[in-house]
Amino acid sequence: MSDSLRPIMDKQEAGQLVNAQRIRKGRTWAELAQLIDAPEVWAASALLGSFPLPPEAAEKVCAELELGGDVRESLVAQPTRTFDPQLLSDPTIYRLLEVIQVHGPALKELIHEKFDDGIMSAINFRVDVDRREDPAGDRVVITLDGKFLDYNW
Amino acid sequence: MSDSLRPIMDKQEAGQLVNAQRIRKGRTWAELAQLIDAPEVWAASALLGSFPLPPEAAEKVCAELELGGDVRESLVAQPTRTFDPQLLSDPTIYRLLEVIQVHGPALKELIHEKFDDGIMSAINFRVDVDRREDPAGDRVVITLDGKFLDYNW
Amino acid sequence: MSDSLRPIMDKQEAGQLVNAQRIRKGRTWAELAQLIDAPEVWAASALLGSFPLPPEAAEKVCAELELGGDVRESLVAQPTRTFDPQLLSDPTIYRLLEVIQVHGPALKELIHEKFDDGIMSAINFRVDVDRREDPAGDRVVITLDGKFLDYNW
Amino acid sequence: MSDSLRPIMDKQEAGQLVNAQRIRKGRTWAELAQLIDAPEVWAASALLGSFPLPPEAAEKVCAELELGGDVRESLVAQPTRTFDPQLLSDPTIYRLLEVIQVHGPALKELIHEKFDDGIMSAINFRVDVDRREDPAGDRVVITLDGKFLDYNW
Amino acid sequence: MSDSLRPIMDKQEAGQLVNAQRIRKGRTWAELAQLIDAPEVWAASALLGSFPLPPEAAEKVCAELELGGDVRESLVAQPTRTFDPQLLSDPTIYRLLEVIQVHGPALKELIHEKFDDGIMSAINFRVDVDRREDPAGDRVVITLDGKFLDYNW
Amino acid sequence: MSDSLRPIMDKQEAGQLVNAQRIRKGRTWAELAQLIDAPEVWAASALLGSFPLPPEAAEKVCAELELGGDVRESLVAQPTRTFDPQLLSDPTIYRLLEVIQVHGPALKELIHEKFDDGIMSAINFRVDVDRREDPAGDRVVITLDGKFLDYNW
Amino acid sequence: MSDSLRPIMDKQEAGQLVNAQRIRKGRTWAELAQLIDAPEVWAASALLGSFPLPPEAAEKVCAELELGGDVRESLVAQPTRTFDPQLLSDPTIYRLLEVIQVHGPALKELIHEKFDDGIMSAINFRVDVDRREDPAGDRVVITLDGKFLDYNW
Amino acid sequence: MSDSLRPIMDKQEAGQLVNAQRIRKGRTWAELAQLIDAPEVWAASALLGSFPLPPEAAEKVCAELELGGDVRESLVAQPTRTFDPQLLSDPTIYRLLEVIQVHGPALKELIHEKFDDGIMSAINFRVDVDRREDPAGDRVVITLDGKFLDYNW
Amino acid sequence: MSDSLRPIMDKQEAGQLVNAQRIRKGRTWAELAQLIDAPEVWAASALLGSFPLPPEAAEKVCAELELGGDVRESLVAQPTRTFDPQLLSDPTIYRLLEVIQVHGPALKELIHEKFDDGIMSAINFRVDVDRREDPAGDRVVITLDGKFLDYNW
Amino acid sequence: MSDSLRPIMDKQEAGQLVNAQRIRKGRTWAELAQLIDAPEVWAASALLGSFPLPPEAAEKVCAELELGGDVRESLVAQPTRTFDPQLLSDPTIYRLLEVIQVHGPALKELIHEKFDDGIMSAINFRVDVDRREDPAGDRVVITLDGKFLDYNW
Repeated sequence: MSDSLRPIMDKQEAGQLVNAQRIRKGRTWAELAQLIDAPEVWAASALLGSFPLPPEAAEKVCAELELGGDVRESLVAQPTRTFDPQLLSDPTIYRLLEVIQVHGPALKELIHEKFDDGIMSAINFRVDVDRREDPAGDRVVITLDGKFLDYNW
Repeated sequence: MSDSLRPIMDKQEAGQLVNAQRIRKGRTWAELAQLIDAPEVWAASALLGSFPLPPEAAEKVCAELELGGDVRESLVAQPTRTFDPQLLSDPTIYRLLEVIQVHGPALKELIHEKFDDGIMSAINFRVDVDRREDPAGDRVVITLDGKFLDYNW
Repeated sequence: MSDSLRPIMDKQEAGQLVNAQRIRKGRTWAELAQLIDAPEVWAASALLGSFPLPPEAAEKVCAELELGGDVRESLVAQPTRTFDPQLLSDPTIYRLLEVIQVHGPALKELIHEKFDDGIMSAINFRVDVDRREDPAGDRVVITLDGKFLDYNW
Repeated sequence: MSDSLRPIMDKQEAGQLVNAQRIRKGRTWAELAQLIDAPEVWAASALLGSFPLPPEAAEKVCAELELGGDVRESLVAQPTRTFDPQLLSDPTIYRLLEVIQVHGPALKELIHEKFDDGIMSAINFRVDVDRREDPAGDRVVITLDGKFLDYNW
Repeated sequence: MSDSLRPIMDKQEAGQLVNAQRIRKGRTWAELAQLIDAPEVWAASALLGSFPLPPEAAEKVCAELELGGDVRESLVAQPTRTFDPQLLSDPTIYRLLEVIQVHGPALKELIHEKFDDGIMSAINFRVDVDRREDPAGDRVVITLDGKFLDYNW
Repeated sequence: MSDSLRPIMDKQEAGQLVNAQRIRKGRTWAELAQLIDAPEVWAASALLGSFPLPPEAAEKVCAELELGGDVRESLVAQPTRTFDPQLLSDPTIYRLLEVIQVHGPALKELIHEKFDDGIMSAINFRVDVDRREDPAGDRVVITLDGKFLDYNW
Repeated sequence: MSDSLRPIMDKQEAGQLVNAQRIRKGRTWAELAQLIDAPEVWAASALLGSFPLPPEAAEKVCAELELGGDVRESLVAQPTRTFDPQLLSDPTIYRLLEVIQVHGPALKELIHEKFDDGIMSAINFRVDVDRREDPAGDRVVITLDGKFLDYNW
Repeated sequence: MSDSLRPIMDKQEAGQLVNAQRIRKGRTWAELAQLIDAPEVWAASALLGSFPLPPEAAEKVCAELELGGDVRESLVAQPTRTFDPQLLSDPTIYRLLEVIQVHGPALKELIHEKFDDGIMSAINFRVDVDRREDPAGDRVVITLDGKFLDYNW
Repeated sequence: MSDSLRPIMDKQEAGQLVNAQRIRKGRTWAELAQLIDAPEVWAASALLGSFPLPPEAAEKVCAELELGGDVRESLVAQPTRTFDPQLLSDPTIYRLLEVIQVHGPALKELIHEKFDDGIMSAINFRVDVDRREDPAGDRVVITLDGKFLDYNW
Repeated sequence: MSDSLRPIMDKQEAGQLVNAQRIRKGRTWAELAQLIDAPEVWAASALLGSFPLPPEAAEKVCAELELGGDVRESLVAQPTRTFDPQLLSDPTIYRLLEVIQVHGPALKELIHEKFDDGIMSAINFRVDVDRREDPAGDRVVITLDGKFLDYNW
């Protein structure tokens, strides 16, 4: 089978290779984000397959991590953002789901109270993760920041 | 059947009655939160059934909204935090789930990079919803703030 | 139990009462839409529970159909847009799902080709249903029309 | 194992190879549709595996994209139109499902009001995707156009 | 609550009442079908809620079975053909599902071989149940008869 | 690994190879059925993996289609008739499921009316697919014919 | 609403009433089986809703347990044998499911080895439960006894 | 990769190899059971992966069927008794599930009547399959025989 | 409807009434356990519906909590131990499920290493909950204690 | 493909290789736990993939079991603690799930009674498995020991 007959490498598979080389070379996600001049969460999401990278960013990452052309081709491809439902059982992710379960009705009420009928966009959207020092134990602070979209016929 | 043989009113049912009277009397969740001197999201979550209210807070809310003793009894009861999976299809809530789907793997990577193996607690935890003005359209800002818990045998 | 202790009538239940009276009085959805000066699909969706009606529109509909204050109160309330998965097995609705199944991958490719990475908004959105005459059998024409939203960090 | 003992290449797999070569050679779906003289959505759906291509169309596409006989054999084969439920979590596709959820009951009511009991055929059917310019942001317009079929014993 | 504020009686509920009276008065489905001059399966499906009855047929059935106006109103209403998945575990129904499981792939191959790509319509469709005498044990003969629809863009 | 350590080839996999060679050699299912002197649906079901073939029939088919001993060994093996639930979303198969959904309750009523309590056997059973000419469009006629089994303790 | 407009009482509901009166009057299932001259498992299954009782048996049971005409009418009605999947989590029932899980493949192999391709009928079928004394602890012995049905086209 | 780095062969995979060789060499399960001096159902269950074989039994079977050390190593390994839910749709197995569905409530009642609160053990347990001759058609007789365990705190 | 025609009150419903009265009268589960001379977890499980109470214990509890004969009748009835899967999303319960997810494979390995092939009985079984003081935060200690049952044909 | 382009070996796959070598070399989990100076359950969970091993522990285990660098690299990697739902049907694991089902409501009540609203942490947590001798049959004793976390805004 000729080389041209390979499908584009799956973006999750490319993401696993990026992560494997990142670990082997001792790089942090923060360093990779800096390398491509992007916010940390976006950089990690994109390198793990959730966003298409600009070609020059894919080029830089593949050079830094000694990854080949197949990975580069995959990193710039349009993602299908499918979802592994099993990931929700990982305790670190599950706590986020539990927050929606426990606080979902209240979040909905308050979004509508502060903005009227509509949603927080998940497309015109950014999210950040920070570590905040606290003498009682440091805290994870995740900020979701999306444009409000009102139902607009 | 004697009165004493009624079960404690279901906390979601009590929450619906609180909400109905809140709307009929033109109160905001912010005003109810102020009445019981509690953060807005906590107040709304508790009044909708996710947290037990202190007796004096339940008393104040029921007086303000002209709700009876059955509602008060329910508001102070220990919740079972079960979950209606259909709520996840409400677009306002669904966008939060989509965020976990699209960014979940990156959030997991960055929590582990910044804190090592562990989780953001959903118990030692608070969440706030804010409206941030923006000339390109105001934004919903949701801040999740939980203590980091490392796996600790 | 005092009247004030009833929850807001469920919006689907209110929608069923609207529909029952609409049928008994021989009104079409088109006539109700005209009554409240709204597009047909929006009017039907709102009266069946998917959108909050402006108070004056709810007033007009309830007067026309001889529905009481409980229905009017429900029609103006903020909806939780939950979803009955069984509805998807109704053949008239199922064909729409089948279209997504059969053409979903192609629609995704062409949206990205014509607009780049992003989505058709379901919030800044309208939909119309028309009957187009055709000698080989009249046709149902459903037009989905939503603002393109590009992923925008 | 002799060559004749290979099964027909899976049509989704063939579709991935078509898409990979399309990207590598810089062709658009619109150009491929023109090449085989077919509407854009049909062409993309067929090349991704949802419809059997006429042999001469499969021949042209494989020549243009330098794909082999196995791909050509697969493109003309009868599809089994199975469905990957995970695709529904891709945000671009999910918005279409959400439209059915939010507007499904109204669409059903209006189809029956305009046509009586029956369905919009998903077989005698076409669908188009267009970009409509709009100063407030260009819009995705998807037109579903199917023959009405009345229940006919 | 005034009488006009009752929703249309659920068609499955009406069907249960039809069936209860049918049994109490010793009528067969065949007799009811004859009464409204309709095929047996259609008559039973319609009276159980899957099809809207013409008003004069509903009138006749309700007179014969001494059913009231609420049932009559329900029998003529447009059905939503939702489905109780638990019904599939009833052995008499399950055997039909098992037939699709065991013979589905062969039926699909032969429909395509005899007709090309397309489907047997379930809308332009009829079905009959017969008892055929057989010395080795009488046989249930179910005939599905639907118009072939070819994929027709 | 020695040849004897291969498992019996999966019957679905053997069925795919039969089908691939059938297409490549331009044979119809009707011709294969004639070759092994069996009804069309049974022949197609058996060759696709739902029934064990008699050794001489497997021999004839493999000779005709130039298939090897592994396929022959698989064709005669006892099937486990498991089921791919995704197949139910193929529109050609789905219409059969929809028939059970829409007409299931009526079919159950009429089987019991004509035969008393029991089932149509899916084991002592045959099914045929025919094309019936019709000026309004030819029709697919599927006849299910099973022995009635009464509950018999 | 007139009495004749009640549906037939649900057979599970009738079964619960039978069981309640059986307990209150101190009767065993064995005594009820004897009363209607039927095997124990059949009698219990029928009285709990899985089989229609002959009218005279229903009459005897209702007289013995002082149950009314609604229960009698329900006991003789044709059952729809739907199934509560939650029952499978009851430990006494779950062990039977576990037996199918652990031994299912072996039971299938041995049925085919002893009888060739086919099934044990669940319709021409009986089942008994016995207590067998054993010094190491008495044993539950459940005997499933069904006619072998070979696949017979 | 060195030989020692292979995982233990999956016990289902080993079971498929045992079965393939059993068929090729014309051995019955009864003969294999005799070879290892074990009851038929236990022998088949163990050889298909549900029980660990004693090393000498594994040795004998592998010698008889000319299977290698990898299979022998797998046969003696501790099983994880996971379960393929698709197996439940095989008609031969499904009938056993249907028996639990139809008779489950009666079996539960009678176990409690004969033994008080508790279960039939599925661990201290044996099951046998027999063919009983019957002029009306031979019968499959499956005997489940488990120690009664009462709830014992 | 005569009193004797009420079914036995559902045991979960009885448990809710027990709990409501327990709270209103300020009793702890520990006090109720002492009242009936039973371990705390068993007492709470039984009073919430998972075990049948001895008649004299039911009598004592109903006297203490001023509950009527219907509750008493329900408390002594044989439970069907069905399960509400939504309860698993309550965070206090979910953590127990997470423990099985994270540690399940290790627990299985160690049970087999320490005892050979078999299970920890959930029938000959007890469980206790204790509070252990700890300067770093008190700890919940749950002890599961069940008889080992080896697979014993 | 260069060696650096392999993903990190999946931790479950590494766990299977550890277990295979452990069995081949006759080592117990207890011995491996001692080798890395860790509690038994933690050691088994970590070696099977649920926890990251310290590099020196991974080194020791790989030396002892003659496993290569790929396994060592995997053992120290951060786990994603996804979960195979099929494992819950293994009888040894299932009994633990059944305990949650039967006793879950009581455990929740008693945790809240002894500690107020909150959870037993599954992160600041340890679990042990012991064998306790008992003349009536030895017992499995599993001790869950987690820090109590109160809901703390």
